[in-house]
Amino acid sequence: MRLALGLEYAGDAFCGWQSQPSRCGVADAVAKALGEIAAHPVSVHGAGRTDAGVHATSQVAHFDTQSVRPQTAWVRGVNALLPSGAAVLWATPVADDFNARRNATARHYTYLLLPRAQRPALLARRAGWYHHPLDVVAMRAGAAHLAGRHDFSAFRAAECQARSPVRTLMHIDVTSDQTMIRFDFSADAFLQHMVRNIVGALVYVGNGRHPPGWIAELLAGRDRTRAAPTFAPDGLYFTGVEYDAKWELPPTRRPVVLPLS
Amino acid sequence: MRLALGLEYAGDAFCGWQSQPSRCGVADAVAKALGEIAAHPVSVHGAGRTDAGVHATSQVAHFDTQSVRPQTAWVRGVNALLPSGAAVLWATPVADDFNARRNATARHYTYLLLPRAQRPALLARRAGWYHHPLDVVAMRAGAAHLAGRHDFSAFRAAECQARSPVRTLMHIDVTSDQTMIRFDFSADAFLQHMVRNIVGALVYVGNGRHPPGWIAELLAGRDRTRAAPTFAPDGLYFTGVEYDAKWELPPTRRPVVLPLS
Repeated sequence: MRLALGLEYAGDAFCGWQSQPSRCGVADAVAKALGEIAAHPVSVHGAGRTDAGVHATSQVAHFDTQSVRPQTAWVRGVNALLPSGAAVLWATPVADDFNARRNATARHYTYLLLPRAQRPALLARRAGWYHHPLDVVAMRAGAAHLAGRHDFSAFRAAECQARSPVRTLMHIDVTSDQTMIRFDFSADAFLQHMVRNIVGALVYVGNGRHPPGWIAELLAGRDRTRAAPTFAPDGLYFTGVEYDAKWELPPTRRPVVLPLS
Repeated sequence: MRLALGLEYAGDAFCGWQSQPSRCGVADAVAKALGEIAAHPVSVHGAGRTDAGVHATSQVAHFDTQSVRPQTAWVRGVNALLPSGAAVLWATPVADDFNARRNATARHYTYLLLPRAQRPALLARRAGWYHHPLDVVAMRAGAAHLAGRHDFSAFRAAECQARSPVRTLMHIDVTSDQTMIRFDFSADAFLQHMVRNIVGALVYVGNGRHPPGWIAELLAGRDRTRAAPTFAPDGLYFTGVEYDAKWELPPTRRPVVLPLS
């Protein structure tokens, strides 16, 4: 029997989603807790391989088990075993051919950036930080160049293992309120460090170092070495995954809600 | 020379505001950092003695020093020395007779409560949690009985050292959005555990155990033993202090903001 899970986690409590030899990945913690409930070893497969320090409001995963348990065992029972930085939000039986990663048709990310002179304390490791004001209008204009289907090599980590650098960025926006700048991204899939590299480049536009059109030049140049440094993982939230309705999953998208000041 | 400071901190990184023999208080960390900049021992006096686990978006404190330093030394310099869970937001010279605690004319607190079946992971230690839905309309009606000048003995910790249990609650409100219930409080001063005890009692109204009028009965009874358990510190934020304009301080109130999309 295959089950799908919705998960929330604080990235600063783990070394990333993926299983590691030292068992410090979110997937390791979840597999261990599920294995205790199932009473057999469990492998967990997630929709998105979030880096160390990256948070998730709505990671989706699947696993297989031969053990029949009440639904609450896979949620409340597992949560009683998980460390405080991770929680299962829902669990549901799913078709045997469902694959959380391969069947995902879109992923959503949000990056939160605190532009202020003083480093964050309440949001330490939960928001990016830039010590000067940023021009949100210019950043939004720069971001607009990235929407659509492109070769994103300029924003791809050197160690990225994806076969193709081409991705479709369906949605990108930069907004702000009195305290926080918010970057929203939706794509079919993301390259390694793609969001953090885009945020880094947009900050170079927001601080006036480059005009918005520089983003179009970077994209066309397909040269990672010409772009800006990768921004910190602290402000990055994996906020959801899209699937075909035929899989009959609960809601798989959860916008970021954080107490800010 | 006396200086006033604005401070932000995550309560889960300390054992409360007050200085402790083990030096685990926020005041200990701030005094240590200020002392390094001042090059002499420093005592820090805060406006509110927040409990262990209670956060602050806007604590105000004062300290004395004979050392003349540029303004940035008291903010950026101190922040470079403070642990990541605390930060100075501003520092300013102030009249020698200014006292952050005695001159405060009002304090503000916000309590954030997450009502959902699964325990919080992203907001672990940053929000209170109740595992069932709560009736916000009933809680708001119950809360209304507390507004005004009253003997708050029913909501006072046994170990509270205040001379009088009488406080003026100028503002109390309960609101909610799709994810979070928010309790806002403004008073001349608060008794020990007063906010957490009020939230505990209001949860007993919100879950249907008692009608809103029970809050009026509790208040009139002045008997702590008849009330509800003290709610967890996790969701409590000290959000500001009011002072007479004559002290010429920067803004001393910073509300908790929840960004929704």
